Amino acid sequence: MMGSMKVSRRSHVPPFAVMEVLAAANARRATGADVLNLCAGEPSTGASDVVRERAIALLRDGNLGYTEAMGVPALRDQIAGHYRRWYDVDVDPARIAVTTGSSGGFVLAFLAAFDVGDRVALARPGYPAYKNILSALGCEVVELDCGPETRYQPTVSQLNEAYYGGGLDGVMVASPANPTGTMITPAELAAIAAWCADHDVRLISDEIYHGIAYSDEVAQATAASYTGQGAVVVNSFSKYWAMTGWRLGWLVLPDELVAPVDALAGNVALSPPALAQQAGIAAFTPEGYAAAAENVARYAASRTLLLDRLGELGWRPVAPADGAFYLYGNISAFGLDSVTYCARLLAEADVAITPGTDFDGVRGRDWVRLSFASSLDTVTRAVDRIVAWHKTL
Amino acid sequence: MMGSMKVSRRSHVPPFAVMEVLAAANARRATGADVLNLCAGEPSTGASDVVRERAIALLRDGNLGYTEAMGVPALRDQIAGHYRRWYDVDVDPARIAVTTGSSGGFVLAFLAAFDVGDRVALARPGYPAYKNILSALGCEVVELDCGPETRYQPTVSQLNEAYYGGGLDGVMVASPANPTGTMITPAELAAIAAWCADHDVRLISDEIYHGIAYSDEVAQATAASYTGQGAVVVNSFSKYWAMTGWRLGWLVLPDELVAPVDALAGNVALSPPALAQQAGIAAFTPEGYAAAAENVARYAASRTLLLDRLGELGWRPVAPADGAFYLYGNISAFGLDSVTYCARLLAEADVAITPGTDFDGVRGRDWVRLSFASSLDTVTRAVDRIVAWHKTL
Repeated sequence: MMGSMKVSRRSHVPPFAVMEVLAAANARRATGADVLNLCAGEPSTGASDVVRERAIALLRDGNLGYTEAMGVPALRDQIAGHYRRWYDVDVDPARIAVTTGSSGGFVLAFLAAFDVGDRVALARPGYPAYKNILSALGCEVVELDCGPETRYQPTVSQLNEAYYGGGLDGVMVASPANPTGTMITPAELAAIAAWCADHDVRLISDEIYHGIAYSDEVAQATAASYTGQGAVVVNSFSKYWAMTGWRLGWLVLPDELVAPVDALAGNVALSPPALAQQAGIAAFTPEGYAAAAENVARYAASRTLLLDRLGELGWRPVAPADGAFYLYGNISAFGLDSVTYCARLLAEADVAITPGTDFDGVRGRDWVRLSFASSLDTVTRAVDRIVAWHKTL
Repeated sequence: MMGSMKVSRRSHVPPFAVMEVLAAANARRATGADVLNLCAGEPSTGASDVVRERAIALLRDGNLGYTEAMGVPALRDQIAGHYRRWYDVDVDPARIAVTTGSSGGFVLAFLAAFDVGDRVALARPGYPAYKNILSALGCEVVELDCGPETRYQPTVSQLNEAYYGGGLDGVMVASPANPTGTMITPAELAAIAAWCADHDVRLISDEIYHGIAYSDEVAQATAASYTGQGAVVVNSFSKYWAMTGWRLGWLVLPDELVAPVDALAGNVALSPPALAQQAGIAAFTPEGYAAAAENVARYAASRTLLLDRLGELGWRPVAPADGAFYLYGNISAFGLDSVTYCARLLAEADVAITPGTDFDGVRGRDWVRLSFASSLDTVTRAVDRIVAWHKTL
């Protein structure tokens, strides 16, 4: 019987290739190597001073017990204010659920919207956890092959194909997307939302990189404008506000999902972290926004450097890096699959980046993702090393 | 289309009756009434000073980014040390997964152990979230009718009946249990673990109230002794260490579930809250244990008062309150169902307690749960009021 008892089929989640890169990077670092890590989808700075000071005050004399399952009212009010401020969209705080990071938000949104066997479409390449969470919850994932002609974003025509092909219960979109950084145009988001409403398909919009955008070509639009048509927004304090380890995010819900998410949240999570919630209120102060904007300016400088040196770098094509802090590039010209490319780049030049196979099971062997969330200096040195290493191939 | 899109069947979670009691209690409080709240399954104190001081230091100069999905190694080491200290059981830290509260632990353990359609047995009365999470994840719940003859705990004979009745893939036990506070004897736990191993049934043991125990009759035994036979332990910092809103818990896993839980955790949660993890290390200092022991001494005083005044209180039978901070009593002698009893007790005597219907869909109308996690003074005044109110019935 030792170690032989049944393990669930749904727990057979494919491992991330980046974990091997990170393990190898740590091993090299342990030998004293100066490894530049551009794997992490995480700001290298932490929460702003105003958030941390608020947290310290709460630790001295705050109540850090369970909160409402949907989050403390004061934070839900602030998030509603954020929608007025940024998007000129009116959101009733009653339709906002504070969650334990966007991860907690995905689990709740998927549970509330989809049953076992439901089919949910999403873009390939894409963030692997969407697929893995949906599969663990018994849903069927329908991958949409997305390429440069649509900024690696799904289109209404692909949704129609999937819908009339095998049926469809939901669609996930992400803008800016991970790993590509590409954005959906406001017109295309409106078209997708309208198509979803017409076909009784639930739209779930991952907006965790909102606020981190560079392109004037593609404005930032929120699916919070379409909750009246059934759309769900997932967002987070991790990226724009650099509060990754705090595990704080939120959902904007259509009316019919408010009570289901409230009930599910009380059971599967009880409440989001109390300290993060109460300190997170300070993220919406002028100081909180200013600190976030400083981070975005830093990413923008790194992005400019990367785009200036694209010719030297020799990755092509690259996805248009509209937002987030990723450059997703094709490395097939170098004659190595991406797993080998990343392993050798680390071993031979001490630069860690992520193989595209983690985001795309079909074409990922030709692509890599570089995160420029670290400092400009780190990104500059990494490009220097990659360019020099290419000459040795 | 407005508000009419499909909501999942699995999100139809039955509402908790206690929510109505709490809403009514808040409404009475708002009118200036002196309401005594004995609903909450939550210590009225917060985290110890040593944990809060550590958190403040980390907010000043700590790294609060994502951690390993299974938690920071230093905390996993401390938890392993806790098993040596309290139970004289050797647990490899590699088999400990830090989770986002025990709620996060239940979700991960259930996903890793059970597939859609699997059957999992648990005691009635019991904590409703077990049932609700299992149902949301597509599992079938088999309720075992547990009464005074077995301290409201399941027995091997009931497991046999369920197994040969319709098949069984898992068993949840909880000791001390919620709502009854009753404990499983070490011999019975060993028998259940052996039966589970023999029948290839996964045992999941909720031990979140460990350390809060009063009875010399029933010693505290951990299923961590049986992970070699496939058992999973769920525990938490919320109760003994009074860290409810911090959302921190852990699993002790059998070898075959370590990789699955690691992979699932990286997808459904990313990582537990970083600040809680790093500050939680301080819970295992002498100061951390001492603060927890003080709380337990306070619960013990309240429990003694309750048991001394049981005759006056007139609830009978009551479940043996071996541990946790609950008194679960039968109120059928008063001629009111528990929902009405609780509503009137609140409206007429300003005491809020929880109707048994939240824990038992069959016999819960005859039972109520009183939490004595609040101060001795509050509990004393509550008993005075209940006794006086009974005379008006």
